Amino acid sequence: MYQFLNDYSESAHPDIIAALQDSHLQQHKGYGYDEFSAKVRNTVQQQLGNSDIAIHFGITGTQANLVCIDAMLDSIDGIIACDTGHIAVNEAGAIEATGHKVILAPSTNGKLTIEALRKVRMRHSFAPHVVRTKAVYISNTTELGTVYSYEELKAISEFCREHDMYLFMDGARLGAAIASYHDNPDQRNVTLADFVELTDIFWFGGTKMGAMFGEILIIPNEQIAEDFNIYLKQHGGLLAKGYLLALQFDVLLKDDKYLELCRHANTMAAQLSQGIVDCGLELFVPTQSNQVFAKMPNTLITHLKTEFDFYEWEAVDDEYSIVRLVTSWATLPDQVVKFLTMLKQQTMS
Amino acid sequence: MYQFLNDYSESAHPDIIAALQDSHLQQHKGYGYDEFSAKVRNTVQQQLGNSDIAIHFGITGTQANLVCIDAMLDSIDGIIACDTGHIAVNEAGAIEATGHKVILAPSTNGKLTIEALRKVRMRHSFAPHVVRTKAVYISNTTELGTVYSYEELKAISEFCREHDMYLFMDGARLGAAIASYHDNPDQRNVTLADFVELTDIFWFGGTKMGAMFGEILIIPNEQIAEDFNIYLKQHGGLLAKGYLLALQFDVLLKDDKYLELCRHANTMAAQLSQGIVDCGLELFVPTQSNQVFAKMPNTLITHLKTEFDFYEWEAVDDEYSIVRLVTSWATLPDQVVKFLTMLKQQTMS
Amino acid sequence: MYQFLNDYSESAHPDIIAALQDSHLQQHKGYGYDEFSAKVRNTVQQQLGNSDIAIHFGITGTQANLVCIDAMLDSIDGIIACDTGHIAVNEAGAIEATGHKVILAPSTNGKLTIEALRKVRMRHSFAPHVVRTKAVYISNTTELGTVYSYEELKAISEFCREHDMYLFMDGARLGAAIASYHDNPDQRNVTLADFVELTDIFWFGGTKMGAMFGEILIIPNEQIAEDFNIYLKQHGGLLAKGYLLALQFDVLLKDDKYLELCRHANTMAAQLSQGIVDCGLELFVPTQSNQVFAKMPNTLITHLKTEFDFYEWEAVDDEYSIVRLVTSWATLPDQVVKFLTMLKQQTMS
Amino acid sequence: MYQFLNDYSESAHPDIIAALQDSHLQQHKGYGYDEFSAKVRNTVQQQLGNSDIAIHFGITGTQANLVCIDAMLDSIDGIIACDTGHIAVNEAGAIEATGHKVILAPSTNGKLTIEALRKVRMRHSFAPHVVRTKAVYISNTTELGTVYSYEELKAISEFCREHDMYLFMDGARLGAAIASYHDNPDQRNVTLADFVELTDIFWFGGTKMGAMFGEILIIPNEQIAEDFNIYLKQHGGLLAKGYLLALQFDVLLKDDKYLELCRHANTMAAQLSQGIVDCGLELFVPTQSNQVFAKMPNTLITHLKTEFDFYEWEAVDDEYSIVRLVTSWATLPDQVVKFLTMLKQQTMS
Repeated sequence: MYQFLNDYSESAHPDIIAALQDSHLQQHKGYGYDEFSAKVRNTVQQQLGNSDIAIHFGITGTQANLVCIDAMLDSIDGIIACDTGHIAVNEAGAIEATGHKVILAPSTNGKLTIEALRKVRMRHSFAPHVVRTKAVYISNTTELGTVYSYEELKAISEFCREHDMYLFMDGARLGAAIASYHDNPDQRNVTLADFVELTDIFWFGGTKMGAMFGEILIIPNEQIAEDFNIYLKQHGGLLAKGYLLALQFDVLLKDDKYLELCRHANTMAAQLSQGIVDCGLELFVPTQSNQVFAKMPNTLITHLKTEFDFYEWEAVDDEYSIVRLVTSWATLPDQVVKFLTMLKQQTMS
Repeated sequence: MYQFLNDYSESAHPDIIAALQDSHLQQHKGYGYDEFSAKVRNTVQQQLGNSDIAIHFGITGTQANLVCIDAMLDSIDGIIACDTGHIAVNEAGAIEATGHKVILAPSTNGKLTIEALRKVRMRHSFAPHVVRTKAVYISNTTELGTVYSYEELKAISEFCREHDMYLFMDGARLGAAIASYHDNPDQRNVTLADFVELTDIFWFGGTKMGAMFGEILIIPNEQIAEDFNIYLKQHGGLLAKGYLLALQFDVLLKDDKYLELCRHANTMAAQLSQGIVDCGLELFVPTQSNQVFAKMPNTLITHLKTEFDFYEWEAVDDEYSIVRLVTSWATLPDQVVKFLTMLKQQTMS
Repeated sequence: MYQFLNDYSESAHPDIIAALQDSHLQQHKGYGYDEFSAKVRNTVQQQLGNSDIAIHFGITGTQANLVCIDAMLDSIDGIIACDTGHIAVNEAGAIEATGHKVILAPSTNGKLTIEALRKVRMRHSFAPHVVRTKAVYISNTTELGTVYSYEELKAISEFCREHDMYLFMDGARLGAAIASYHDNPDQRNVTLADFVELTDIFWFGGTKMGAMFGEILIIPNEQIAEDFNIYLKQHGGLLAKGYLLALQFDVLLKDDKYLELCRHANTMAAQLSQGIVDCGLELFVPTQSNQVFAKMPNTLITHLKTEFDFYEWEAVDDEYSIVRLVTSWATLPDQVVKFLTMLKQQTMS
Repeated sequence: MYQFLNDYSESAHPDIIAALQDSHLQQHKGYGYDEFSAKVRNTVQQQLGNSDIAIHFGITGTQANLVCIDAMLDSIDGIIACDTGHIAVNEAGAIEATGHKVILAPSTNGKLTIEALRKVRMRHSFAPHVVRTKAVYISNTTELGTVYSYEELKAISEFCREHDMYLFMDGARLGAAIASYHDNPDQRNVTLADFVELTDIFWFGGTKMGAMFGEILIIPNEQIAEDFNIYLKQHGGLLAKGYLLALQFDVLLKDDKYLELCRHANTMAAQLSQGIVDCGLELFVPTQSNQVFAKMPNTLITHLKTEFDFYEWEAVDDEYSIVRLVTSWATLPDQVVKFLTMLKQQTMS
């Protein structure tokens, strides 16, 4: 049974395991105050062309989100997210547990639009009876695998600045987004350095691109960056052996290794997507990164599940459902071929 | 420069690195719902002689503490801890950030006493103006490296049950405590199974006994155990690649590997402690596990620091300070000898 | 300028002022532990035919909501409310500030429906990634002045019990609802005692029916009632001079004084509503209590505002808006006549 | 049975009842946006010689404390209070429920000292493992009825500014303190305007000086003042009929009525205190305002309790206890005489 369930099914890329083995008996200071962490922080700062920018390391995505949002907001502030956003439903009330309201806006293909932002703000103008709409949350790639174009990001960024709101980007799959920009000649490329310009705080996730765990938190906004480490500690997000986080990103950032890994994942997804369309099936949203959402007959799903595991996202009606297929750096091309062959046999017959 | 700073200076025991390498391309379900996690849970349950007991995995110690306490308490409940307890000062307000008061009691050699508990409860009897004193926090070994005897634990446990309070044990260094019981013929041995009898919830830390990170959370009290995974998720403590946690404990629990590692740490500390006393210096608290606290002249400290790194715990007066030396599974016996030689040379001269 | 802005424009009914004057130099124990509070608690219990039911007093509506919800829920629990519910938008994140998610459901004429509940629960079934849907919030009368029928309440109550959820009713305008049942021969009457059967906890507001401030909190569910006073104290909701709360409800409950006051308010609203319809204007929702929502041309609104103050609820388009008119125990019949006369002159011309 | 239990035993001063009666059928805007509230805000600003200073109204003392502290602090900040401070034990965890740690310092006669502050800060210097010590809480008069001298206040204020900490003063009994300064020729007088210079935020309580309830919150620090009303609303502290708060302070501030009332209370306490000393009994702390703490034999306490009600503060030993006697604007001089007569008869016999 092969899994297209997730992009975190395998523990880590071989290079990371090798780096671990090379260094595991060295002594380091704790909590990220070691020289290794300093070196990686420095590497990232140089890559971003900003030697002052605050760089931290986190452990899990939900924690990165809750720590960043708590550091950004005062008690009376809420954060706007579209209703498919990870913080909206799928983090077990993590943001609310820090005392902050997540304000829902309707989504379009998993994305937040300026029009939706405008409406939400209008509904929250009756102070002091409403929270302040102080920040905006986007995820890129989105939970539906779609990718914000540079123009979309720029419009949201400008809207936020105009209205004195922070822009926060959840980058659990930011590597896949960057790979998508990289391989799309029709669009303006978007790099890590662009996100420094566009957002106030964002994170770049390792878990879904070959790390065992961990993310880099990048904080262009100096006010948010102040004493950020205490926020991490308070929420249990400061790893005693912090050098383990740096070590993994050292591997992934070297010669843009992560980009190579994410391009593989996107390529595998593109093949799945194209194959599905070729079989006459319909996509639920366009495939732009390493997630494929497609509408399939339930009978077909049942059959595919004899060999492959993947999520049934939601029921369409009694006969059809939306399925999600996720690829990763570790996805085996042979398994993609096998899946598509099986699909073709079924849909042709 | 050799470090006696911490027991988390080295990333992981070689066996753990080897296990990682063996398995890193296998596919697993996420968030601890994999078969590996199930197997380790099962192993622990068998070792505890209780196939129903709730077993979870956590990532960091501060997070384990805040999640356990939040799961235990209602909003109006506080938890009593002694003033040297880790949650009292050194977790950056993590417990209060979940809305709960940490109620301070004076400590005796790092331990909580029944007498202190009684006084604190008396001061909190004026309902509805006070929080309910609903739980008691102890750490074992304590932050001063001392170890609760079975009799002390039993007394606290009974006091808690008598007064309808939960007993929670922070086991960041529980392995060191268990090794201490194991090697002390004058005392009743205390095992993991005993803690199931004595407490309502406790955790058993991996970070300080050779894991990269992680702890096992064990919840004898069924009420606290209910939907515990959601508490973990809400506080960002559910690792996507949860099988990494199980994998590490699989190594540490096999043939009581952890006990071997912790006994080494305790032995190294005992040698340091004895050597210090032999030089005519005074201990701050008795050495019972892998931490040594001693009073030293500041001139001596400065000299030792040319070769070794360790914490100055607190100033005694202008001439003397308390230092802390921590040993671990990885402590090199040669370095202990070297440290003591240097000490002897200085104190004899 | 006469106000139809609110039902809390006047400070208090003359009988309450008189009662205050009669008793203001008596000595009482603090925080509701006085004999007067005990007497009123007893009166309510007798009226509800339940001498054990927990009865508390609160000060403001937002506080009543946040205290009740905090007392009901564990940290990992959310509460479902419809999107027009007071806790959903208009309490400045009060519920989230206690750590709990408010889960939005679409509303129908200001009411929550079983169908909406079902969908929301389905979207929150992916544990441990979602909060538990542990409670349901309704307000009666609703924020749009509509009133739940007994059958609607019963259906929601049964749905909650079936799914192990608490039902909580915000009764800021419960008096108006009770008056509406009382005067509607086509419907089953619903009394305070019925709400004890139907809900787990609810409150009965004084502010909008002639008290200076204050509400009675009634808690049929014994588990929620436990140590409820500490929840009140913790959130600053325990009035030092608690006897002031009891004193006001003593006046309002005597011979169902509150019912007389609320019937007046409803009658005034019914006259406004009928007059508006008679002028060929459209209602936004049916008028069932003391709030009237109507669609009016902006030019008409501007004219009416030269003599009357009221809220413009929301814009319909460039020419039309929804307005809200609120009546109370203190509404002067002459002003209703004057308003309708002015309206008629404008719409006829 | 006459009560020396509290200074909130009687509902309100007759002038306040009269003002209520005069105005109770007027229409006002809600939530403090009425003209009456504006007028009183203006009066206070003029009295403080600062027309820009933020002035708000609160309802209960615990709520004033929690709202002020929440508005002052970021999530990672704690507030230092001495261990007899009201927020330390007697507010049911209200501050922690907003997510903030109350950091305890030892008290001296109910007061915080610079020396205690220094030690606490030293213990909290190990960032990122500790909360930031961002604010200091004092109450004036203290919970033991003592009054900070101008010099003590100035020293604490300067210490706070030097270390970038906010100073917050709980003024539940500030009127009694001001009366104490006013009537003490040996000390520098301290006025409301002085507190604007000395603190960042403080409140001036009405409940204990003749109001039914309510306090004025005064916020010299502009940063803390920003959107303060939303903090009040979020915590349920914005009264719908906000004009009721203004109305009461209008009475109390007119011609310094409150000062007259508080001087009466202090005089009554001074008579009790002197009488107790004259009987050869010992005070627990010096009597400086309207609270008297004295050490009495338990047999004497039992006898006095046949006619008077008051708190037994704490047991000294098996034979003696500390009692607390509280006076107020409403204390009857005859009852003071009666109490002292009874005392004299007992202690002489």
